[in-house]
Amino acid sequence: MSEIRKDPLTGRGVIIAPERARRPGQFGCAANPDPSQACPFCPGNENATPPESWADRAGESQPNRPGWSVRVVPNKYPAVIAGGADPSNLTTDRSTGNGVHEVIIENAAHVANLAALDEQQFIRIFHAYRGRLRAWGKDPRWRFRLVFKNQGKRAGATLEHAHAQLIALPFMPAEAAIELTNAGEYYRRSANCYYCELIERELRAQARLVASNAEFIALCPAAPRFAFETWLLPRIHAAAFEESDDAGIAALARISRQVIAALDRLHADPPFNYFIQSLSLDQSERAHHHWQLRLLPQFSRAAGFEWGSGMHINPVAPEDAARLLRDAAI
Amino acid sequence: MSEIRKDPLTGRGVIIAPERARRPGQFGCAANPDPSQACPFCPGNENATPPESWADRAGESQPNRPGWSVRVVPNKYPAVIAGGADPSNLTTDRSTGNGVHEVIIENAAHVANLAALDEQQFIRIFHAYRGRLRAWGKDPRWRFRLVFKNQGKRAGATLEHAHAQLIALPFMPAEAAIELTNAGEYYRRSANCYYCELIERELRAQARLVASNAEFIALCPAAPRFAFETWLLPRIHAAAFEESDDAGIAALARISRQVIAALDRLHADPPFNYFIQSLSLDQSERAHHHWQLRLLPQFSRAAGFEWGSGMHINPVAPEDAARLLRDAAI
Repeated sequence: MSEIRKDPLTGRGVIIAPERARRPGQFGCAANPDPSQACPFCPGNENATPPESWADRAGESQPNRPGWSVRVVPNKYPAVIAGGADPSNLTTDRSTGNGVHEVIIENAAHVANLAALDEQQFIRIFHAYRGRLRAWGKDPRWRFRLVFKNQGKRAGATLEHAHAQLIALPFMPAEAAIELTNAGEYYRRSANCYYCELIERELRAQARLVASNAEFIALCPAAPRFAFETWLLPRIHAAAFEESDDAGIAALARISRQVIAALDRLHADPPFNYFIQSLSLDQSERAHHHWQLRLLPQFSRAAGFEWGSGMHINPVAPEDAARLLRDAAI
Repeated sequence: MSEIRKDPLTGRGVIIAPERARRPGQFGCAANPDPSQACPFCPGNENATPPESWADRAGESQPNRPGWSVRVVPNKYPAVIAGGADPSNLTTDRSTGNGVHEVIIENAAHVANLAALDEQQFIRIFHAYRGRLRAWGKDPRWRFRLVFKNQGKRAGATLEHAHAQLIALPFMPAEAAIELTNAGEYYRRSANCYYCELIERELRAQARLVASNAEFIALCPAAPRFAFETWLLPRIHAAAFEESDDAGIAALARISRQVIAALDRLHADPPFNYFIQSLSLDQSERAHHHWQLRLLPQFSRAAGFEWGSGMHINPVAPEDAARLLRDAAI
């Protein structure tokens, strides 16, 4: 069983997950497991994962057999596990690691780079994210849900076959809570959503604009932690990705594929992380929380300076990154 | 010229440093420059670095010539540069990247792993840290100084030859400011330094104790972000590392070498970061700021979950890590 602990002085939370130490190659030089081993995410190897929670399946195919295009399974080495006591908040310094940890296998064929997938497959992937976030969002135990993806060994992927993960937690991590509070204060001061104003400003200024369509904007934030960091936001205020309709999912698939393909054209097979947060909000918070997908390329890694100062050093100004991505997106 | 920017909503600072993009291999797959190139930190190649700011030199040797045991030079690809306007605080969203960025070459012979150095060389290294922190601490422009080290490619080192870095900034980063504020609040509540109490408690409990001598304690913190994370603290309250006397430096050299050697025995040639913060404090803050060296092994890397939640997943409980390190330290 994992444990969630909080540093009493800083309030910073960590998940102590001994299960994760059992993953292959955790402490050796090779972060990747033996490449001669069969890929547990490939069709035909369905028994190498726990039984599926959900799959996008064609016609007659059976669960845990080939025939799927996106497949969701519990993580074999979970950071958190549902069950036991249910602390609704991280108020004590230690609690059991209560939560959900799933893997979303994003393609049947063994593809490592999302840029190789077509728009239709992007739509299927975002449908899967939406479905899982809706399913776990209905469960009152979880107040914070995160879909995240690590592509490439340098971005923390331990298995190459394209996949994302979902972790749900019974409390809101400090960082998300602070951002939500600050957005609420901004809203009370200016009677407008901070991100709605940001979108308008960046569309006018153009300098950090990467791409846009009728429903979404992709921009490089003014103070990005990572080179080529890009945020995708719905242009009309929306508090939760999982409330998107099918047209919204299609527009998100289009723009995210466009941005990922542009990044891939600039830097062949780029390592990156992205994530979408899904928060349990009350009615008033819905006006100032503007959901987004944050894409964080990982060309360098956080090291002594970052851990010692909490600040990041980014060698590429977002105005330059946006220009390069815009040009590569054409 | 680099630039320091602040995200208006979260207050998070970043350094935009285009100079750093000129380092070899920034975006390619190989984070390390061409290994056939001569090492710029080896004796005989002194001209490959900017002229030295300081060196520990034997007898008759000339500056920027061989004959040194520790050598300090300005960073060739600086994240910040002294000069220009002098914002005393990060109050606006953008300011010039004003600061100091030095490299401390920790050994003359080409050694990558600190565990290979003897105690005498550790003493010389900490003398160099102390000397540089004292020198920059006298300059009223800098309010935050950080000595940090990245050992191993997986811990962000771009050059293999053992070296640390020093960055001084004209403001206190948000994370350090928050920790200082919280320590101050704790002090006012309990009339004691948080870390002095922590040391007493951990010495009594033993479970997370790694090593100790008359002057220092090495312990695994209760809520560590990284597997085998270890903090080294002076047992008698002290607000600044650079105020250490020679006996203190010798004791720190002894315990840090002991811990690094233990880590090296457990995980051959471990990738790690460590850092020491040096803050400009007023008299009242000196009572509650307890300096420390934080050693952060880097066996896995922060990825989508960490960037999306601000929390870390650590597969090794600190009680297990401390026991393993204790056993390996014998």
